[in-house]
Amino acid sequence: MITFENALEIINEKIKEIPYPKEPKNLYAPIQYILALKGKKIRPALTLLACNLFQDDISKAIYPALAWEIFHNFTLMHDDVMDKAAIRRGKPTVHKVWNENTAMLSGDAMLILAYRTMTKSEPHCLKQLLDLFSATAAEICDGQQYDMEFETRMDVTEAEYLQMIRLKTAVMLGACLKTGGIVAGADIETLEQLYDFGINLGLAFQIRDDLLDVYGDPHAFGKITGGDILCNKKTFFLVNVLEFCDENDKKNLLFRLSEPNFDPNEKIISVTAMYEKYGLKALAEDKITKLYDKAMRAFELIHVPTERKTVLYNFAEQLIARES
Amino acid sequence: MITFENALEIINEKIKEIPYPKEPKNLYAPIQYILALKGKKIRPALTLLACNLFQDDISKAIYPALAWEIFHNFTLMHDDVMDKAAIRRGKPTVHKVWNENTAMLSGDAMLILAYRTMTKSEPHCLKQLLDLFSATAAEICDGQQYDMEFETRMDVTEAEYLQMIRLKTAVMLGACLKTGGIVAGADIETLEQLYDFGINLGLAFQIRDDLLDVYGDPHAFGKITGGDILCNKKTFFLVNVLEFCDENDKKNLLFRLSEPNFDPNEKIISVTAMYEKYGLKALAEDKITKLYDKAMRAFELIHVPTERKTVLYNFAEQLIARES
Repeated sequence: MITFENALEIINEKIKEIPYPKEPKNLYAPIQYILALKGKKIRPALTLLACNLFQDDISKAIYPALAWEIFHNFTLMHDDVMDKAAIRRGKPTVHKVWNENTAMLSGDAMLILAYRTMTKSEPHCLKQLLDLFSATAAEICDGQQYDMEFETRMDVTEAEYLQMIRLKTAVMLGACLKTGGIVAGADIETLEQLYDFGINLGLAFQIRDDLLDVYGDPHAFGKITGGDILCNKKTFFLVNVLEFCDENDKKNLLFRLSEPNFDPNEKIISVTAMYEKYGLKALAEDKITKLYDKAMRAFELIHVPTERKTVLYNFAEQLIARES
Repeated sequence: MITFENALEIINEKIKEIPYPKEPKNLYAPIQYILALKGKKIRPALTLLACNLFQDDISKAIYPALAWEIFHNFTLMHDDVMDKAAIRRGKPTVHKVWNENTAMLSGDAMLILAYRTMTKSEPHCLKQLLDLFSATAAEICDGQQYDMEFETRMDVTEAEYLQMIRLKTAVMLGACLKTGGIVAGADIETLEQLYDFGINLGLAFQIRDDLLDVYGDPHAFGKITGGDILCNKKTFFLVNVLEFCDENDKKNLLFRLSEPNFDPNEKIISVTAMYEKYGLKALAEDKITKLYDKAMRAFELIHVPTERKTVLYNFAEQLIARES
């Protein structure tokens, strides 16, 4: 059995081995650039570890895992253009280093590369993997679309928010785990349990991300705390505070969110104070715990010896307890 | 056997039957919009007609053909953003009707839809079709990248230009034909002949397009004549005139191309006059004829009864003789 670190090593090795055409340089350099940024590689690790639940030989899960990592980075490259983000993993985004056209076209080439990599899967499960890959990829586009539409809305409900993060974030974790199960030939019921495990873990993961944006240590988190607040991002915190606060606070909050010119520190402090007033940290932590428990219940249903589950179990735990 | 018109009917019917999720509306409406524009549907027709060379039942070529049409329109949606094009097939482009982010994300969803559609192919040739699809898609990205890089270059050679249009335009025609052959179970040699036929037809098709931009009837062509000239597009005409003209003409031409403010009519007239002076229309027609002949030689090598070739033969002829 492999550890999480083993999984990372395998993926990092495989990323280095991706064959790129020499030309046109400006099309492929951005792909190499984004894949070389120090990402967490959670998604491909989930695929390898899920396969490893059922069998020792994970070699046939490597290309599918790599395909997910390439796909994930494709979404980052395009999302960063759409969100006009300047920094990704502590480095300038592709469209800042090059330009928007390059980020667009390199992203397209990356999506194609992800499919090419997935197509290297074993023939007997190729169609099943591709159907899952495409269905999930389409849902992720839906999620990004909702996320963008939420930017101009102040009446997003918690249910809508949860649906958005399910699509934008959680389905990929579910699909990565399911991919590992498909490669290992797991039965349909088990595949659904893996998927449920991933979905609920993904939802908890995203709310944890929202929480770290407010309360995280910027050094550990690798992003500036309050980034979501500054751009009025519809997080678990903002949609809930807008729903729960009294009329007067809502009026003040909406005014603050609508100010075109503001002092960043002041905005962060005042919005965070509102989160404090309405006990949103506890609400978020409670939601994370519930989702995490739900994830674990799905995971526990999977019929494999307990010792085979240790790595994924610890990984899930760390993912939710993370400070970064 | 089917006619070209039959092929169009089949494709148009299938386009109408594409199942779209109801939500998010703004993600799927642009896909429906671009697919409803009156395109020539050359690519899916090639797939169906190529399959029909070998067998009467073309039903198994329909999804692959549709996948190519969706893919082609995806490239148009993204290219129009990159090229800042306002009009496509006589209608406002997607990023003008909606916005650039929508065109970017809907395009991504469209590329995924193209793969989903291709994945509906028969299992026995799925991997072969997907490998061809991905390899060709990647080449088309290469072609678009070169095309963009040529914008700021005045020293593009004819060989570079031909390589660019091979990647951006010709490989897709070759791959569409080959797709039909793969579905029909044609042997490797035949598949290569279909591909060569398509490549050379595609090169001839693009040079014909360049020619129509200069000499076409705007009403028949559906685009404003001289559009390429106004944006200094590196066409067969421009790269050759820059190579063949004398020092003085080159100096004048380069000056004209570099003018930020110009009278559009005057620019078209003067650049066209230069093409006339150096006999470029005849050069282009000669090149088209040579490429067309090469395409036909590859086509003739395909071992099927001559009567089965009539539809594709006539189609190829019309494609090159076209006024629009």
